[in-house]
Amino acid sequence: MENKFTSDFLSTNSGDKEISYANNSLLQKTIILKLLPTLNDALRETFSKRLPTSTFEVADLGCSSGPNIFLIISQVIDSIHGVCQQAQLKVPQIRVFLNDLPGNDFNAIFQSLPGFFERLKQAQGKMVEPCFIVGVPGSFYGRLFPTRTLHFVHSFNCLHWLSKVPPELKDTNKGNICITKSSPANVIKAYAKQFETDFSAFLSSRSQELMPGGQMLLLFQGRHSQNPWSEDCFFALLGQSLVDLVSEGLTTEADVDSFNLPLYKPCKGELYEIIESEGSFGVEKMEISEVDWVPRDQDDVEFLSGQYFSNIVRAVSEQMISHQFGDATTNRLFMMYAANIEEHLRDRNKGKLVNFLVSLTKK
Amino acid sequence: MENKFTSDFLSTNSGDKEISYANNSLLQKTIILKLLPTLNDALRETFSKRLPTSTFEVADLGCSSGPNIFLIISQVIDSIHGVCQQAQLKVPQIRVFLNDLPGNDFNAIFQSLPGFFERLKQAQGKMVEPCFIVGVPGSFYGRLFPTRTLHFVHSFNCLHWLSKVPPELKDTNKGNICITKSSPANVIKAYAKQFETDFSAFLSSRSQELMPGGQMLLLFQGRHSQNPWSEDCFFALLGQSLVDLVSEGLTTEADVDSFNLPLYKPCKGELYEIIESEGSFGVEKMEISEVDWVPRDQDDVEFLSGQYFSNIVRAVSEQMISHQFGDATTNRLFMMYAANIEEHLRDRNKGKLVNFLVSLTKK
Repeated sequence: MENKFTSDFLSTNSGDKEISYANNSLLQKTIILKLLPTLNDALRETFSKRLPTSTFEVADLGCSSGPNIFLIISQVIDSIHGVCQQAQLKVPQIRVFLNDLPGNDFNAIFQSLPGFFERLKQAQGKMVEPCFIVGVPGSFYGRLFPTRTLHFVHSFNCLHWLSKVPPELKDTNKGNICITKSSPANVIKAYAKQFETDFSAFLSSRSQELMPGGQMLLLFQGRHSQNPWSEDCFFALLGQSLVDLVSEGLTTEADVDSFNLPLYKPCKGELYEIIESEGSFGVEKMEISEVDWVPRDQDDVEFLSGQYFSNIVRAVSEQMISHQFGDATTNRLFMMYAANIEEHLRDRNKGKLVNFLVSLTKK
Repeated sequence: MENKFTSDFLSTNSGDKEISYANNSLLQKTIILKLLPTLNDALRETFSKRLPTSTFEVADLGCSSGPNIFLIISQVIDSIHGVCQQAQLKVPQIRVFLNDLPGNDFNAIFQSLPGFFERLKQAQGKMVEPCFIVGVPGSFYGRLFPTRTLHFVHSFNCLHWLSKVPPELKDTNKGNICITKSSPANVIKAYAKQFETDFSAFLSSRSQELMPGGQMLLLFQGRHSQNPWSEDCFFALLGQSLVDLVSEGLTTEADVDSFNLPLYKPCKGELYEIIESEGSFGVEKMEISEVDWVPRDQDDVEFLSGQYFSNIVRAVSEQMISHQFGDATTNRLFMMYAANIEEHLRDRNKGKLVNFLVSLTKK
């Protein structure tokens, strides 16, 4: 079977799907809530350099759809207002560009806007200056904005997704859908090369779009070690679940062999190398952090955790999976996956997501 | 019955509706095709004043969804390229902001973009500079863009829609859903006042957003005479069709009395007065034109014209109608409407849509 993946299918599930991203993005919410203080610091720093300014232009790249967007926009507004209050300056106009692929559910975001503005108005009294929220469809691996028009860019939980499955892979990554311990060297090399190409293109596009001194705050999945596979990758477990389906006759070995996710988790050294070689940005900060796949602070969560986490992964990857394997297989796959996750999580040291938080300043 | 109208229902039918706007906007297409040379002239004039510029920012207000959008964007690109070719200048980056209410089907537009860019690339060879297309959800009767960020604004087939049904109307416009010969004086006054408020707010918002010297090209429905009713209004005929349904027991007189469309067709004098009183714009051009409801150049069109035209009106107004009267009544209404249109069009002097084309320059 051919790998039918195109970036058209690299969108999260829309609001009308059974397992929608909007209702299954709690892990991402946990991550974003942790991030807000850092986002606040970065925004205040970038904005303070620009004072006084009449407009502050911010882009959220890979925004997806769902309530997390509004957590972030609220933080943007609060941060700017905070600086102005402290410095006794007039609040500028803020424009937030929400970007994702053309297949993203922008309608759902836009329809939530009137309610969001209403809540904002109630929280702030009469708004001093209007805030403008617009949608920018397109891939962030290419140009999205005119030259030197942005002050600040952020991207959360996206940059581990590649622009495409590396074309060299074909069916050489047998029994896997991403890099695992059993992936051969050429597979690892092809993935690493695609990440280098994509991340360079991302940096180069943003370097044209940001004003000098503009800042980027990026969070995405990575790995601790030099080993090219992640120690604890939930997508590897999804691949195992697909292999389990072969014995049930729901798919074939050839189908699984030919399917690969456009996914790469870099290590620190690789990131530094690409950023330096592209040359437009200085690294302000690069931090590694871990977050549990499922919250460990409630006794009953572990019982539910397989299903809970399976839904989170399904909301993100269903479009890719079902396009390749069909809806019936996808339903069974995510049942199987929930059980496998459950099993995996019984070992309490397992189930950690590794993230890089990278802050870059345009030279 | 209460008039349940809010601007949430002032969106055209999305792609998944039986009678979608995308498939039933041929009248609008006819109008836009006629308009393209004028749009070309206006764009060339505005752009020439700015040369050389690195970015040209254009807004399409009330873009709706469907193929007409791409006719307009292509004209924008062609006009700018034309000027640059003539003057042997580098083509600037062009950014087109597509605006409509949050309920508009932006997903359908965004999903058509990759195909549009592909066709553009084939037509132009390698594009000299990228063109950026973004979505701006919100009402054009308020602010949509930061101060002094736009070069050119156009709005086609929208400004006759008010921001709301005038609150004074209640159920005083008996047997009508818009202004007709039988509307009492207070109804006419309330509509005219709402138009004045809305059109002033439109001008004032745009005057803040446009750069000095920036231009607007507006096309919307109006009327020839001083009489406050349009001589040939297809919405009046829709009201008559609703009244016909009363005798069928599908709706009541009270229902019809309480329902009014947020629609006003101004005359020349009113427009001049509002523009002058608002004060930010100079009138470059104000032209009145007529277009047939249905094309008269084919023999078989007349036979189909009732259904054909009913679908066009349905694609634009179904959301408002069905929210008030329910889906079953709406289905029957548009069947009845098709027959009434058919009847109306038998008199070949009837069935003309009157449009104003207004070109304004920011002082």
